[in-house]
Amino acid sequence: MPIVPPLRNAPIIATKRLKRSENRRKTPTPMFAPPASPHARLSDQKANPVNPIPDFSRGQAFPGTSGLLPAIAQDVANGRVLMIAWMDERAWRETVETGQAVYFSRSRGKLWRKGETSGHRQRVEEIRVDCDADAILLKVQQTGVACHEGYESCFFRRVESDFSVNIADTRRLDPDSVYGKST
Amino acid sequence: MPIVPPLRNAPIIATKRLKRSENRRKTPTPMFAPPASPHARLSDQKANPVNPIPDFSRGQAFPGTSGLLPAIAQDVANGRVLMIAWMDERAWRETVETGQAVYFSRSRGKLWRKGETSGHRQRVEEIRVDCDADAILLKVQQTGVACHEGYESCFFRRVESDFSVNIADTRRLDPDSVYGKST
Repeated sequence: MPIVPPLRNAPIIATKRLKRSENRRKTPTPMFAPPASPHARLSDQKANPVNPIPDFSRGQAFPGTSGLLPAIAQDVANGRVLMIAWMDERAWRETVETGQAVYFSRSRGKLWRKGETSGHRQRVEEIRVDCDADAILLKVQQTGVACHEGYESCFFRRVESDFSVNIADTRRLDPDSVYGKST
Repeated sequence: MPIVPPLRNAPIIATKRLKRSENRRKTPTPMFAPPASPHARLSDQKANPVNPIPDFSRGQAFPGTSGLLPAIAQDVANGRVLMIAWMDERAWRETVETGQAVYFSRSRGKLWRKGETSGHRQRVEEIRVDCDADAILLKVQQTGVACHEGYESCFFRRVESDFSVNIADTRRLDPDSVYGKST
């Protein structure tokens, strides 16, 4: 539940943008027409500001990509934030098309099909994009653990108000057993 | 609950790094000594890899900052991912010291004390950093709504497998009432 209950009960107020269509005002969760093509050009997105798909031209520059956007993976079962990684447009398309999380590895400079080495894949249950169309949220079914250090979540370290750092979670497995020479 | 139950019951296996200290092996959630100073230099972090605080030298370059790292805000009450923004080292320090979320606004090129205009502040209940020390997770008590468009979360658009986009959430308030001239 949110912190300020009155907001939950507030009427749904359409903004100027939504007021362009009367139909949209009547529908709490309006369905928009899909882009002309899954590979719609960025100019198409800009022409339809109420229906943005991720705008990779606004992403972090990286050689060989159209830009990188941050992608958060959240465990659909328990709500934990598992990790954050980066997507270029190819990773984005493959993720949407296959339902398996695919990122762009900055260190390796290529597509990273999560779990391709470890087997710890992420099946994508839901995809969200943010208001600025420059960040992605994946709700995933995580096989095994998300973190290469063997923790359920990469965010296993807690920072206290005195800036000290604790390991706040329990390691689930030995990373060497997953990433060792024999696997 | 995780997808693969056996991992939950697996023994806690210390890695080579943890084996350096016998005490650490006995403690599932070991407490580490805080840095010498809250303003510890980056070289100190690198000398103590098991106790990293965010390494802003690894962040996205931006004029006037030591680097920007992504910071995810998650609602501590219901687990929703509310937004993602950026922090430089000053924003990070102020966030930890004050317990209120402070980001760095790339569009305005300055510190952004979340809620300073809207009143929709984020009280920080817990801070996590990730395994690579280049991403931050804030668990927050959100006053009002996180999104400047009036939604509880900035991630209010859902993307379907055919790349179509729906608004999947209900708008909580009219942004004009918050960001209008009179407020």
